[in-house]
Amino acid sequence: MSLISLTTDFGSFYPAFMKAVILRINPDARIVDVTHTVSHADIRAGAFAIYSIVPYFSQDSIHVGVVDPGVGTSRRSIVIDAQGVLFVGPDNGLLIPAAKRIAGQDLRVYEIKNKKFMLEVSATFHGRDIFAPVSAHLSCGASADEVGERVYDWVDLDFKQPLIQDSSVSGEVIFVDDFGNIVSNIPYSMISQITDFGSEVIVYNRKIPFCRTYGRVDEGNMIALIGSHGFAEIAINQGNAAKKLGISSGDRMIIEACNDTD
Amino acid sequence: MSLISLTTDFGSFYPAFMKAVILRINPDARIVDVTHTVSHADIRAGAFAIYSIVPYFSQDSIHVGVVDPGVGTSRRSIVIDAQGVLFVGPDNGLLIPAAKRIAGQDLRVYEIKNKKFMLEVSATFHGRDIFAPVSAHLSCGASADEVGERVYDWVDLDFKQPLIQDSSVSGEVIFVDDFGNIVSNIPYSMISQITDFGSEVIVYNRKIPFCRTYGRVDEGNMIALIGSHGFAEIAINQGNAAKKLGISSGDRMIIEACNDTD
Amino acid sequence: MSLISLTTDFGSFYPAFMKAVILRINPDARIVDVTHTVSHADIRAGAFAIYSIVPYFSQDSIHVGVVDPGVGTSRRSIVIDAQGVLFVGPDNGLLIPAAKRIAGQDLRVYEIKNKKFMLEVSATFHGRDIFAPVSAHLSCGASADEVGERVYDWVDLDFKQPLIQDSSVSGEVIFVDDFGNIVSNIPYSMISQITDFGSEVIVYNRKIPFCRTYGRVDEGNMIALIGSHGFAEIAINQGNAAKKLGISSGDRMIIEACNDTD
Repeated sequence: MSLISLTTDFGSFYPAFMKAVILRINPDARIVDVTHTVSHADIRAGAFAIYSIVPYFSQDSIHVGVVDPGVGTSRRSIVIDAQGVLFVGPDNGLLIPAAKRIAGQDLRVYEIKNKKFMLEVSATFHGRDIFAPVSAHLSCGASADEVGERVYDWVDLDFKQPLIQDSSVSGEVIFVDDFGNIVSNIPYSMISQITDFGSEVIVYNRKIPFCRTYGRVDEGNMIALIGSHGFAEIAINQGNAAKKLGISSGDRMIIEACNDTD
Repeated sequence: MSLISLTTDFGSFYPAFMKAVILRINPDARIVDVTHTVSHADIRAGAFAIYSIVPYFSQDSIHVGVVDPGVGTSRRSIVIDAQGVLFVGPDNGLLIPAAKRIAGQDLRVYEIKNKKFMLEVSATFHGRDIFAPVSAHLSCGASADEVGERVYDWVDLDFKQPLIQDSSVSGEVIFVDDFGNIVSNIPYSMISQITDFGSEVIVYNRKIPFCRTYGRVDEGNMIALIGSHGFAEIAINQGNAAKKLGISSGDRMIIEACNDTD
Repeated sequence: MSLISLTTDFGSFYPAFMKAVILRINPDARIVDVTHTVSHADIRAGAFAIYSIVPYFSQDSIHVGVVDPGVGTSRRSIVIDAQGVLFVGPDNGLLIPAAKRIAGQDLRVYEIKNKKFMLEVSATFHGRDIFAPVSAHLSCGASADEVGERVYDWVDLDFKQPLIQDSSVSGEVIFVDDFGNIVSNIPYSMISQITDFGSEVIVYNRKIPFCRTYGRVDEGNMIALIGSHGFAEIAINQGNAAKKLGISSGDRMIIEACNDTD
């Protein structure tokens, strides 16, 4: 087991400390940066990033996530064993949607306590001092139950379930990507109950087409589509929808079928 | 063959899906990020990025490029065999200048059709679903002609040839880098026909020195120089020339020799 | 020896040239990006980045640093052997604090002269033409004294020593990170002489708490803390302190103990 993915809100520079620590313990580890530009302290956005990508990695990967506004407080550090796929990070819900996507409710969660898997622990940088070395030791063959005791009262996190009412679906913005595309928690299976590709929908007071792909509208036009992650997304072809609409992670998104006949 | 380079306009996050897919197919692949901040949907800028860097990679590399405003439309997906150096991406010209730099007109282009080299294909993310897995299979030893039929009517792209008229060279801006340095398609061989290092030139209505290196002028001053890619470039020493001049990729650049005797 | 770290002010794209060159010479090299967003031409900030991270890498690493406003002028290119840890870059002080952190005054500095370790050298991109290939050859087993003659008059750089006067410590801002956290050159050992965690301090005309960690104040509040690098740092919990205060690298930072009894 030697592939370690890293998802943080650290920006540049700090992720390299984690890599230095990992490679010192396991010089053969493969490290993949998922993203380090998760909106700062936005646990739900980080959770979505890990949730989205985890099925594409091989089953013997270890996923480290650090979006951790509670670092240095009493929040716990955990390892999750999700039917063999391992997750390492803070006990704040960040890792849960991804772990459940792999293993449903079959999660074994361990509180990280074993100091032999840590560096000397600072108050501000558990990514470097705890999560990186723990992931490296796991990639060298340590088992999840060696890091500490199993716990059952870990912090849960669910992307709320959108609601269908009449001809609209009401959900939540869970991620805004680098292009300003606004990703919701509304899956295609819900949209398809009210409308389908080729129709128009009303979102944020605008009537826009619901398309299969970006290229279907002219440059600068707004569209709704199902993104590569399987969720409804509002985009401007070659523009920034989030900036234009003033939308950010956590805002509501209501998609209404447009039954005009004009 | 196991080095795969990635050049996209994906920003953060989406490139990681490509890496996950590649490493799942070929856990030994080496992946190098060329850049993921190509100006969005700017095929010429992406083409320049790949063109610039390709000679520095070993001959047994595979170069994946994804600047792909036509994703999900009828544009084809291709593999180019340029005398053994392989390129993978959309058939929109992006890969052509780099491939020609390696192999001149000796390009074999194959349309990607073989579904066993793809994931289930979404409408919006061929980088993940087609180009990443195809490159991984190529890195494992699949040959270009296994991915699909050879095609001859692929989309061409040339950086236009600049023109010399009297004492000026007229070209085009093909790339603006992270520092705001404005890179043109004008090679040193054309500049040297009208002037040489140590002289002054007139560009964008300013008389500026034509220097060998950035350090030759004071901080904040504008200069023309031949960048590390071999093309004329306008820069401000420790400043942002593109922002100051309001120039972006696709704009004209005319460099005029300055024959004042003062 | 095969781990090579890269620290530059190159932004996106240019670092990939260095990686292509390194991997062509040593296909087995491991490359870790420390950061490529050092404030442009800010040698002290780059020096701090390398200084901060170097103890976390294994002892057989090679650290390439390129923050190089003097590229193409007469400044020398050097390799430093710091008791076996190697540094490669320009002779402008950038590498010195990190090298001294490893080996104290026991530095052997060599001017890079041996052309067989270089590409053809351009005037603007020694990262690609000199530092990358030299580091790759070192990682393949070349020794520092093969690259050129030992020199003794290399450019030194010290983070100035802060001063304690009465109940205040006066130092300097040496780094602003991606979050806008303002990092000084003031170590905990000096702060602890005037105050301690749990007290308030006066910095930039504000009375703020001196805390162990970010989470100790409400969102949007300013705090002083000791960062993960061991130096005093001013931060806004989930905000950007540097932007709010208008502070950048090189500015003074004075931390005054607050002896109010209210």
